[in-house]
Amino acid sequence: MARRARAARNRSAPTGVPASPHIQRVLPFFDPLDAEQIERLEALVDWIFQDVGIAFRDDPEALRIWKEAGASIEGDIVRMPADQVRALCETAPSQFTQLARNPERSVTIGGTNQVFAPIYGAPFVRDVEGGRRYGDMDSFEKLVKLAYMHPNLHHTGLVICEPCDVPVSKRHLDMVYTHMTCSDKPHLGAITEMSRAQDSVDMAEILHGADVMEHNCVIMGNVNTNSPLLVDKVVSEAIRTYCGRNQGIVVVPFILTGAMGPVSTAASVAQAMAEAMMCCAFSQLVRPGAPFILGNFLSSMSLKSGAPTFGMPEPVISNYAIGQLARRAGLPLRCGGSLTASKIEDAQAAYESADSMHSTMLAGANFVLHSAGWMEGGLVTGFEKLIMDADRLGSYQKVLSQGLDTSEDAFARDAYGEVAPGGHFLGSAHTMRNYQTAFYEPKLSDSENVESWEEGGSKDMRQRAFTRWNEMLAQYEPPPMDIAKKEELQAYVARRKEELPDAWY
Amino acid sequence: MARRARAARNRSAPTGVPASPHIQRVLPFFDPLDAEQIERLEALVDWIFQDVGIAFRDDPEALRIWKEAGASIEGDIVRMPADQVRALCETAPSQFTQLARNPERSVTIGGTNQVFAPIYGAPFVRDVEGGRRYGDMDSFEKLVKLAYMHPNLHHTGLVICEPCDVPVSKRHLDMVYTHMTCSDKPHLGAITEMSRAQDSVDMAEILHGADVMEHNCVIMGNVNTNSPLLVDKVVSEAIRTYCGRNQGIVVVPFILTGAMGPVSTAASVAQAMAEAMMCCAFSQLVRPGAPFILGNFLSSMSLKSGAPTFGMPEPVISNYAIGQLARRAGLPLRCGGSLTASKIEDAQAAYESADSMHSTMLAGANFVLHSAGWMEGGLVTGFEKLIMDADRLGSYQKVLSQGLDTSEDAFARDAYGEVAPGGHFLGSAHTMRNYQTAFYEPKLSDSENVESWEEGGSKDMRQRAFTRWNEMLAQYEPPPMDIAKKEELQAYVARRKEELPDAWY
Repeated sequence: MARRARAARNRSAPTGVPASPHIQRVLPFFDPLDAEQIERLEALVDWIFQDVGIAFRDDPEALRIWKEAGASIEGDIVRMPADQVRALCETAPSQFTQLARNPERSVTIGGTNQVFAPIYGAPFVRDVEGGRRYGDMDSFEKLVKLAYMHPNLHHTGLVICEPCDVPVSKRHLDMVYTHMTCSDKPHLGAITEMSRAQDSVDMAEILHGADVMEHNCVIMGNVNTNSPLLVDKVVSEAIRTYCGRNQGIVVVPFILTGAMGPVSTAASVAQAMAEAMMCCAFSQLVRPGAPFILGNFLSSMSLKSGAPTFGMPEPVISNYAIGQLARRAGLPLRCGGSLTASKIEDAQAAYESADSMHSTMLAGANFVLHSAGWMEGGLVTGFEKLIMDADRLGSYQKVLSQGLDTSEDAFARDAYGEVAPGGHFLGSAHTMRNYQTAFYEPKLSDSENVESWEEGGSKDMRQRAFTRWNEMLAQYEPPPMDIAKKEELQAYVARRKEELPDAWY
Repeated sequence: MARRARAARNRSAPTGVPASPHIQRVLPFFDPLDAEQIERLEALVDWIFQDVGIAFRDDPEALRIWKEAGASIEGDIVRMPADQVRALCETAPSQFTQLARNPERSVTIGGTNQVFAPIYGAPFVRDVEGGRRYGDMDSFEKLVKLAYMHPNLHHTGLVICEPCDVPVSKRHLDMVYTHMTCSDKPHLGAITEMSRAQDSVDMAEILHGADVMEHNCVIMGNVNTNSPLLVDKVVSEAIRTYCGRNQGIVVVPFILTGAMGPVSTAASVAQAMAEAMMCCAFSQLVRPGAPFILGNFLSSMSLKSGAPTFGMPEPVISNYAIGQLARRAGLPLRCGGSLTASKIEDAQAAYESADSMHSTMLAGANFVLHSAGWMEGGLVTGFEKLIMDADRLGSYQKVLSQGLDTSEDAFARDAYGEVAPGGHFLGSAHTMRNYQTAFYEPKLSDSENVESWEEGGSKDMRQRAFTRWNEMLAQYEPPPMDIAKKEELQAYVARRKEELPDAWY
């Protein structure tokens, strides 16, 4: 038994990379909506299911599936009685486990579990030394390694930046391969075309084996609806490909309030619920019980320019509301992240990211893409920002997983026998037995006095982050991997690259 | 009626300074503790009242008052049955109004009301141009003017920085005079010595008149206990002076967890409750019904240096817990703020401030000192930080005072008749009638695209804040004031300055 535990420990950290257990929340949820608000919001969602309808476009097979299930089809607009949509959503699991190739890094998504993953989809990267530039395979690989190494990231996502030096038609192969080999954390697969989704699922089958895959989620796709009220074939084909193989899918209405939804947080939240739940119902028609994550991405708008804004009160309140609605629907939720419109890693970036992420964590988001590294409205992945955000995630992790410890030892009654009024607890027995685990302090925070800080060169957080990620990369060692599987993956990638033409769109 | 409304408007903004209504919260509270945790925590508080006791030191009059009320006195340690302490606390108002000299800027403290005030007590100031230096009267006056002008600050506090060029013995006179004349918002008075508290109350009587003052709170003192478990005479005399005149008092246990309290958030929260509630009971013995604010200031510690840390998970969870416990006790709460250990206005400052303030606002803190301007663990007031924080407060204001609007108009059903799947809501009638009030965007946030931002000089938030506070000061005009009252205040200050010796400690 002791030997097994030791073996497990060895397996978890063979290269000194720390464990990265996802959050098992003990803190109660914050439910800001009253019963009447919930009833009215759910009625609005039902009205969209039944009366407004949602278009499923350019995918005749999707319409065939809907028709077979009894939906009303008018052109490509699908309508269905609300109780039928809700009944279908109930067959989706309220929580499920995504296996990682290192079993100690598997994550459970849904319920009281919360999983953090880095930014997804930025075409540019930025760091203190190299400035702002297009993402490339070199940056991509470095960023995946950093996400693998950071204990507060439980999942590595996929498009941590766009590797723009690889043809679009082949990029997904290199991205999935890099996540599978440079990291042993769970990750996502591609969705931009059905064949790319298929490649991702096929590579996952090589890594995990067909048997395991038949009964477990080992890979997921993350896909945006074309809001408002439009599910194009990228979405429906991704659902069919992933869920058809019993793998997970995250469907995310991206709503810039006032553009892709009404200029109203409540309506945009309801619309997002309706779009995502219709996709959930569709996923359950494809394969009952397939893992589904209800996504939500709501942004506000600058009246000065029409540009999207982040970390503002409207998405904060929408995070709280969607959390409550998703729990009511019994579906795992993806929302929020460490979001900002700032171009650099300044105070604006941090204020916006923290307000966005504080509400994300408190809302109970079960899967948080963009929890680290996001800058410039998602156009840029910041190397420094990735580490700064990821460090801060440890704070949320502690709040959620510990809440307020009210055990008898935490009450420290014995310490009051040792300390006189106006005295101090520094040397009390209670302090001695607890101080090492009492506090979480992010590595990049500087709490020294101003003299020490000035002696150290008056470095701001951004400069300290630059040093830190470079040090981390210098220490990177790949997680151990079965050579045969690695070669099989390499062969798959090589074959597919030969089959596919170079295409840059 | 229309004329009266117009007159009121004119009175509110004669100099173009916007209205600054405090927050009337509609968002529900977040109550993270379950019934058992509350029962256990309150039992711990009661144990401190009854068994541990709290010392009231160097103030024989305070011990006399306690003795007369039937407390047990051993040396200077006061113990009282918990039900008696709690019964005394019940005579304190659960909410009260502090009148401002401009009645439209009066604030209500307690219940669902939340009031934001700037940093208190920093000996140093910092700005982009002048760097870090001792505070002086020039900085003090500028900071009071900025706090007066900013609509998201509802109260100007008092020691917005220490005016270190004025003798300590006379400083309070200049500070109170500056708040009374450069601003028409509510503010605090001095507490460092009984005579200084007395001067503050006497000046308030000149400003507001004895009659008004007899029946209304027009000034408050803010004072720290000498934790653990020690109430020195600064505190008890401040309570006697302010509450004796029916004015408000904020009593704040300052607990660096592990030093002035056990290295446990739960125990430190309970200790803070016990210290503050004993002071509340004392205030009600001095004058039943006197306004009392239960304060709480809890900080964590860096294991590297023993330095206090801010914006960390331990104070975040303590904010949530103390909010719930203060509501149970029926007392207005002061806690939290935009706190950070960072030396400059970098990402660290903003991450820490935002996590600290997000939990402060959600916890329902009724009076928030340090809501803007705090840097370097409270040693420094930042000019840029003041404006950056204050701008962000508008976001919390919106979240709290609006929650999620689920009115029929917010549901935007008509808009769905205008917009096809995949279309946009930009020109819909619903958008046209709502877009101007749909979003809050802090003035210092930059959401432009990177090209515009670079053309504008690639300025970070700190540089934009420097420009903004200088522009604000250039537009400052003093609020109108009764000349006779101003002269009477001047005469009071001049007379007291003659009576008092210069002293620098």
